Amino acid sequence: MIKEIQMDKRLGTFYGIGVGPGEPDLITLKATKVLAKVDTIFTASSSKNKHSLAVDIAKDHIPETTPVIRLSFPMCKDKGVLEKAWKVNASLIVETLEEGKDAAFLTLGDCMTYSTYGYLGRYVKKLVPEVAMVAIPGITSYQAAAARLNRPLVEGEESLLILSGVHGGNRFRELAGSAENVVFMKAYKNVSDISRALEERGCLENSFGISGCGLPEERIIPDIREFDNIAPDYWTLIVSKQKNHHD
Amino acid sequence: MIKEIQMDKRLGTFYGIGVGPGEPDLITLKATKVLAKVDTIFTASSSKNKHSLAVDIAKDHIPETTPVIRLSFPMCKDKGVLEKAWKVNASLIVETLEEGKDAAFLTLGDCMTYSTYGYLGRYVKKLVPEVAMVAIPGITSYQAAAARLNRPLVEGEESLLILSGVHGGNRFRELAGSAENVVFMKAYKNVSDISRALEERGCLENSFGISGCGLPEERIIPDIREFDNIAPDYWTLIVSKQKNHHD
Repeated sequence: MIKEIQMDKRLGTFYGIGVGPGEPDLITLKATKVLAKVDTIFTASSSKNKHSLAVDIAKDHIPETTPVIRLSFPMCKDKGVLEKAWKVNASLIVETLEEGKDAAFLTLGDCMTYSTYGYLGRYVKKLVPEVAMVAIPGITSYQAAAARLNRPLVEGEESLLILSGVHGGNRFRELAGSAENVVFMKAYKNVSDISRALEERGCLENSFGISGCGLPEERIIPDIREFDNIAPDYWTLIVSKQKNHHD
Repeated sequence: MIKEIQMDKRLGTFYGIGVGPGEPDLITLKATKVLAKVDTIFTASSSKNKHSLAVDIAKDHIPETTPVIRLSFPMCKDKGVLEKAWKVNASLIVETLEEGKDAAFLTLGDCMTYSTYGYLGRYVKKLVPEVAMVAIPGITSYQAAAARLNRPLVEGEESLLILSGVHGGNRFRELAGSAENVVFMKAYKNVSDISRALEERGCLENSFGISGCGLPEERIIPDIREFDNIAPDYWTLIVSKQKNHHD
């Protein structure tokens, strides 16, 4: 790392930090050390909501004098709107880096798993191709959920499929049987359809839902059919095991 | 946690701790806090090799007075032999718990991802069903590899498939196209066949290998065809992206 910084003294290093899924102690030592030394911290806040859970998780490790800048990312699927947001936010980060300051971008969970850091990093790299980028992985929500319930994610010769919940149950219907273990992230508004797809496949008994894992509002849903009666939560995960897959 | 311990004062708590993939600073704060307070630490060592990488990673957080007991697990696939080892080792852990002592079992990476802790925990639970078990997740090797190369594992609406390398390239051949991103763990002796399967699918350009990620002996293999000429390493990972999956 030190070598990389010395390569170009005028440009700061850009860190991507996964702060873990919610429980503050699930942050890594490496993340805490970088938080203690960087000059500026950036994080995402939705345009609707200025609150940042990532900052809450990391706050004990951020010196009081370190500026924390909340970047606005729209919660929408319009590529043009999103690209504009990445570009504008990347420019703000590059301004800091060009002052010779190190900057960190905080993400919930892991910075390489469904994270804004990937997109942002590509735009930063476009603006300053010589930039040193250092990613620090974080515990994902699905790992925390499995640990919380003491239920292995994947064992022996099995496989594990991580799906985005934006497809509802459809990707799972197409792929059904392809993996012994399935995790749906970002299940959100599609929880009911995902539950139905799992029920169709006879996986009800071996599936569970969890929302806000490790947070005070944590809720475990052992019978995923209950999702029909529960208001969807952005942080809902569904984890499922296909029993006797190879029998 | 405190509540669970108080439920039965005579029985210690059994912790499963994922210490992360190799770089000592990738351990979580939660893991370091538990390591500082448990009475006894257990870890696996193969019958061939008494060295434990998990203990090396965690050593700065283990008080000098805490006993560290290496449990022998045979490196074989014979279910009878393995079951006997889990049973014997679980009994040793239960002896400690029955003395009212808290015990932790260390695993490399994450304790819920291809970990001995899952099996061991089931045997411990059989012997003392009332035991309080607490799992602490750890950063996996594939997360560390993605971070090391600053390459997202999964983005947007994509999916991620984690495969055990014991099937060589065959599971991938069956499932080819089912996920935009694939990780092969435990690739070991099957690296050549996995590389061939990826080549068949036209994924060479977007695949890479890495062994000993985060360790002094780390090696990155950008062209996975090189695996034909490299002695396989137990810690080899192969990460692949199927370009333009949905095009």
